[in-house]
Amino acid sequence: MKLLEDRIINDGLILEGDILKVDNFLNHQMDVRLLEEMGKEFKSLFKEKKINKILTIESSGIGIAVMASRYFDYCPVVFAKKGKSSNVGGEVYSCLEKSYTRNVEYNVQVSKKYLSADDSVLIIDDFLANGEALNALINICKEAKAEVAGCGIVITKAYQMGEKRIMDMGIEVKSLARVVEMKNGEIKFG
Amino acid sequence: MKLLEDRIINDGLILEGDILKVDNFLNHQMDVRLLEEMGKEFKSLFKEKKINKILTIESSGIGIAVMASRYFDYCPVVFAKKGKSSNVGGEVYSCLEKSYTRNVEYNVQVSKKYLSADDSVLIIDDFLANGEALNALINICKEAKAEVAGCGIVITKAYQMGEKRIMDMGIEVKSLARVVEMKNGEIKFG
Repeated sequence: MKLLEDRIINDGLILEGDILKVDNFLNHQMDVRLLEEMGKEFKSLFKEKKINKILTIESSGIGIAVMASRYFDYCPVVFAKKGKSSNVGGEVYSCLEKSYTRNVEYNVQVSKKYLSADDSVLIIDDFLANGEALNALINICKEAKAEVAGCGIVITKAYQMGEKRIMDMGIEVKSLARVVEMKNGEIKFG
Repeated sequence: MKLLEDRIINDGLILEGDILKVDNFLNHQMDVRLLEEMGKEFKSLFKEKKINKILTIESSGIGIAVMASRYFDYCPVVFAKKGKSSNVGGEVYSCLEKSYTRNVEYNVQVSKKYLSADDSVLIIDDFLANGEALNALINICKEAKAEVAGCGIVITKAYQMGEKRIMDMGIEVKSLARVVEMKNGEIKFG
C-alpha cells in the first residue's frame, strides 16, 4: 500500500534495536483517514473470503479493526485482552504470549461467548515480527473451532520469523507494508 | 441516546458489586454500527465546540474515539497508555490513576509530541464512575496546556462521584447513557 509506505518513510522513525516507531499515525496518535484507507485495502485483499468477524488484540489493533469492519458489512470486532493472571476461568479461551520486545508474558484471552465454530475470522493486527501475538490469536480461534479466513497486518517485518511461521500453518497473511530490510536509518519494502 | 439505552437494557448484564457488563457490544465485542451512531451523537452534543483532537485511554475507548473522529473532520485520535512503570521519562505527560474496580494503580501516559497548547481536546471514554481515568486525562491536558473542550462518555454512573467531580472543575460532561439507579437487576436512566 503505497500511501502507507510513503507515510512510514516520511513519519516513521527507525531506532536502535530494530525498532520502527510509527506512533505519530498508528499506535499512539492515530490518523483516522489513513485507518479508513487501510480498512478499504484489507477488504480488497480479502474480498474472496467469507468473513463474519474480525479478531484483534488490545490496544493498537482496535482502531484498525473497527475501521476495517465498516468494509466487511460492519461485522462484529472482538479484541482479545492481555491479562497477567494465570488463573483464567472456564469462560474464556486463552493462550500464553511471550513478547520478545518487552520481555514479558501475557495471557491472551477471549470470552467463549464471542468466538465459536460458526465464525469465519479475519485476524487484524498492527505489527507482525516474531508472530507471537498472531500465533496466540490463531490458537484461540482453533480452540473455539472458528475458521481463520486470513490475517491482515499493517506492517510486517518480513525478515523476522513471524510471517513464515504463520504461512507455514497454511494461513494466508496479507500485509499493507512489508519491510524487507531496515538498517542505517533506511527502510526497504518488498 | 435511546438506541444505546435500549441496547443496555436488552444486552447488558447487571452483576453483583455494582457491575454493568456490556462486553457483548462495547468493550470486548464491539458493534461497529452502534459505535458509528455514538460518534454522530457526540458530534451533535459538541457541535458548538472547536475540537481538533480526540483524547482517550486504552483499551475500550479507542474504538469509540476512532469512530467519533470521522464526525469531527477526521481529527487525530490520541490514546493514553497505561503503564506500571513509575520511571517515566521526560518525553511524556503522565498522571497516576487509581482504579477502584481493579484495585491497581496505573501511570497514564501521553507523549509530549501529541498534545500541546494548540489543542482543543474532546476527551472520550466508555465509562465514567469515580472519574479516576477521566481526571488523569484532564490533568494531562492541563500539563500540556491544552484546552479541554469537553468530555464525551458512553455510560455514566451518575450516582457515583465522577460526573460531579469533573463538572465541578467547570468541564462539560455529556453522556450517551446516564445511569441513575441500578439495583435488583433493574437499571434506570435519567
